[in-house]
Amino acid sequence: MEETTYKSISPSDFFYRNREIAGFSNPSRAMYSAIRELVENSLDACEIRGVPPDIYIRIREVSETGSGTSIYALRVEDNGTGVPPEHIPRCFGQVLYGSKYILKQSRGTFGLGGTITILYGQITTHKPVRVTSSTGGDIHEYEMMIDIVHNKPIILSHRVRANKAGWRGTAVELYLEGDYSRSMYRIYEYLKQTAMVNPYAEITFIDPRGRLYRFERVTEEMPPPPRAVKPHPQGADVETYRRLIAITGEKTMKGFMTRHFQGVGPATAEKFLQEAGIDPGKNPKSLSPDELVKLVRAAREFNGFQRPDPSCLSPIGEHLLEMGIRKELGLTDEDFLKVVQRRPSTYLGYPFIVEAAIAYGKTIERRLGRGIKIYRFANRIPLLFDESSGVVWKVVHKIINWGTYKVSPDSPMVVVVHVCSTKIPYKTVGKEYMADQPEVEREITNALRSIARHLRLYISRRIRLARERRRLSIFEKYLPKIAEFSAKLCDREKPPDIKPLLKAVSLEVSEAESPLREVPELEEEA
Amino acid sequence: MEETTYKSISPSDFFYRNREIAGFSNPSRAMYSAIRELVENSLDACEIRGVPPDIYIRIREVSETGSGTSIYALRVEDNGTGVPPEHIPRCFGQVLYGSKYILKQSRGTFGLGGTITILYGQITTHKPVRVTSSTGGDIHEYEMMIDIVHNKPIILSHRVRANKAGWRGTAVELYLEGDYSRSMYRIYEYLKQTAMVNPYAEITFIDPRGRLYRFERVTEEMPPPPRAVKPHPQGADVETYRRLIAITGEKTMKGFMTRHFQGVGPATAEKFLQEAGIDPGKNPKSLSPDELVKLVRAAREFNGFQRPDPSCLSPIGEHLLEMGIRKELGLTDEDFLKVVQRRPSTYLGYPFIVEAAIAYGKTIERRLGRGIKIYRFANRIPLLFDESSGVVWKVVHKIINWGTYKVSPDSPMVVVVHVCSTKIPYKTVGKEYMADQPEVEREITNALRSIARHLRLYISRRIRLARERRRLSIFEKYLPKIAEFSAKLCDREKPPDIKPLLKAVSLEVSEAESPLREVPELEEEA
Repeated sequence: MEETTYKSISPSDFFYRNREIAGFSNPSRAMYSAIRELVENSLDACEIRGVPPDIYIRIREVSETGSGTSIYALRVEDNGTGVPPEHIPRCFGQVLYGSKYILKQSRGTFGLGGTITILYGQITTHKPVRVTSSTGGDIHEYEMMIDIVHNKPIILSHRVRANKAGWRGTAVELYLEGDYSRSMYRIYEYLKQTAMVNPYAEITFIDPRGRLYRFERVTEEMPPPPRAVKPHPQGADVETYRRLIAITGEKTMKGFMTRHFQGVGPATAEKFLQEAGIDPGKNPKSLSPDELVKLVRAAREFNGFQRPDPSCLSPIGEHLLEMGIRKELGLTDEDFLKVVQRRPSTYLGYPFIVEAAIAYGKTIERRLGRGIKIYRFANRIPLLFDESSGVVWKVVHKIINWGTYKVSPDSPMVVVVHVCSTKIPYKTVGKEYMADQPEVEREITNALRSIARHLRLYISRRIRLARERRRLSIFEKYLPKIAEFSAKLCDREKPPDIKPLLKAVSLEVSEAESPLREVPELEEEA
Repeated sequence: MEETTYKSISPSDFFYRNREIAGFSNPSRAMYSAIRELVENSLDACEIRGVPPDIYIRIREVSETGSGTSIYALRVEDNGTGVPPEHIPRCFGQVLYGSKYILKQSRGTFGLGGTITILYGQITTHKPVRVTSSTGGDIHEYEMMIDIVHNKPIILSHRVRANKAGWRGTAVELYLEGDYSRSMYRIYEYLKQTAMVNPYAEITFIDPRGRLYRFERVTEEMPPPPRAVKPHPQGADVETYRRLIAITGEKTMKGFMTRHFQGVGPATAEKFLQEAGIDPGKNPKSLSPDELVKLVRAAREFNGFQRPDPSCLSPIGEHLLEMGIRKELGLTDEDFLKVVQRRPSTYLGYPFIVEAAIAYGKTIERRLGRGIKIYRFANRIPLLFDESSGVVWKVVHKIINWGTYKVSPDSPMVVVVHVCSTKIPYKTVGKEYMADQPEVEREITNALRSIARHLRLYISRRIRLARERRRLSIFEKYLPKIAEFSAKLCDREKPPDIKPLLKAVSLEVSEAESPLREVPELEEEA
């Protein structure tokens, strides 16, 4: 029999041992994940500040390490809020420390932020990270490493510089082992799709081969930022109720429900507590464990609550999404593009909003080829992996009968779906695709069907237009001849005036070319 | 602009927020994961103690909670080492605390042990867990909850009882919300496959409907336990080297390499350090970050190290695996079963061993139907999800041409593959299937091909045997008649004796029924 050794490991150590959880499973995937983590932090920082993001990304190859991998220097800079100097070391050098542990929509996968990227850089290159940041005052520059065993930052240097230019933002510069050539395509796709849903962002990317990619800002307009909200009584679990009871100053259950949950007025609280079989006058701190569990279960079943407050969500908006798609796909007025935003809905007590778009036409055929291409977003993050396992693919390829809308499988078409929620229904731990939660699936389906009805009209009119044009060109070709022969036949010298006739035909064509009529909204299919 | 709140969360809190990482994504999956976590802890505890495991599992429905889910009481009891009383609270009430954070093969997915199960039980039922354990002395019983915010146990009661019967082991009893009817099939499959690779374990399971399942022990023999080993210089990353340098008492790099790594003698150390361009006499603590990184990269490229020491691995062994498969599939001597264990091999510096088996025949057709069925194991854990994405499926359905071995797609056949390693090459975070690492893929392929050659012989002989039997029955039927007619024809009174003739025919049949000859090992395909 062997001795058993018991010990505790730090969260840093856990993620060091299980870094694939955060997407750092190999040099190619790690390169992609590093950029994604830092860019998403930067976008969030700019949106919190309320300024259109200027993101600058540069990857420089430092040395080759063999079998396709190299050491790269990665720099990501933004003009966001900046991090207060006293928080910089822990924000970037301590796993599970940050600003995202509150209830509102934010980017990022597990709230591990950039720390996991810095950790990966450190264990592959053993070089420190340099973080430069200003919240408007002095510029603070830290060189740091992470003490993985104790999950705390080791500060190697801290310099303070005067901020004459009034710069605000954060720049992170680190070294990591990566594989650019194998991750290149995904990094480009990630940035392009990010630009599509953030048309107010200017993203500059200089790749290791010195190529510059610029995703330009086309508007200064930004969607309203998400607000932190109280939990909804239906989406909260036993632990959430317990934590609220621990901190509440309320002396009655009625007061407790009204104070700490969204959309619960005194009347609703009273009705709910009666249905749950709990005295509204009871002190929340005196609830027994069984009563607490009963309360949570009753909340799930109770129908009288308001729908979850969607103000913690930050959809892109039809106007901005349209601008972003038009820009990144390079659409012209000839192409079809229609964007819809659905009303807020909920699943299992979590609010969500679906936004969707379809683009169709010659430009897409020229740039992306024929066939239906899907772009998926969750909380404004592009999802690039496992497309065919997700709910969007299911709706597009299994549920919607495109024939109804005159679309064939090789039509040049792009489908865009954005789901925003305080809890995206990811299907697996990797968080690369969304599950087919019935409510979410229904919203996506209805969004795409309502657009597809417009598309059918567009396609019908394109078909009619083509037919009319063909007819007109025949008339134009033969009418003069016919007029001439007819004139000769009846011995007239001058053929009849064919202009009025041709004009009548042209009228039909120009009508077909007039702007799209709005399609009346039909009753939605369930 | 909004205020930004910075805060730190504990590892408990992280897993509370991201419990799907550990497999607790919904009531059905949670039920399965809870059993799996506790059973694997129990098996490990028995193997460390060196006694054949007696595992007792009981699920009792406490109350329905609606829409298919219920509150269940789950109890898992073993006869393992027991946990020393001073460690019980932290082992079961603190995430990232335990006995598995050392370098040897062990079960479990992320080393989160049972704590994550207890945490899930607590947040769905708000009831304490009861842990009873003895390492041979007094019996200690704790009732505890987890302080999720601070990641520490809250002890509600601690009772000590005299251990008159000399019981040793651990029993965990907790309440959780689950969905038994939806997880039933997987739980049964999990236990059956666990029994298959642990034929020395006795597993008793009483399900919520009161049905008793018993997976019986067929041997007391156990495979030798894995040993903790020093890291291999090729599999260690910068962080591992750094940690060893921090604790070493060695004054030279040569001494450092020899002392802290497996299979590095003074001559190898000297040769390696020279190739890496590092002075063997240099003090390890004076290595610069760049030299450290250079050292790690050089180790990956260096060919002179011994292969990783497989004594940290614990394969099942051909004999035990054969017993387990024969038992759980109920095979008879009529059926084909062949098990092979490959020699240790390595990928990326990690040692691994492949064990494989093929079973074929009437029993399988009767019990499982026709077609090829795969059982996959990683470090003696059954893998039940995403079969078609894994390397075993690839080898069975894409690489091996079964026609060569007279096997057709609807042959009644079971393929068993077990990979044990200090680092299983899981493809995704969910850890449900293994990636096609070339070395692992090759070992699995060669293992199955070597068995398939035996199988071909078996099938050929079955075919020949069937033909011979048919022939014999024809002879038996017609020879007496022919003999009679022939006798009449030549006016003899007594027909000739046909026994010698029949015997000659039978001889061929009995030869075909004799035990299988060993198939000579062929040169392996790469």
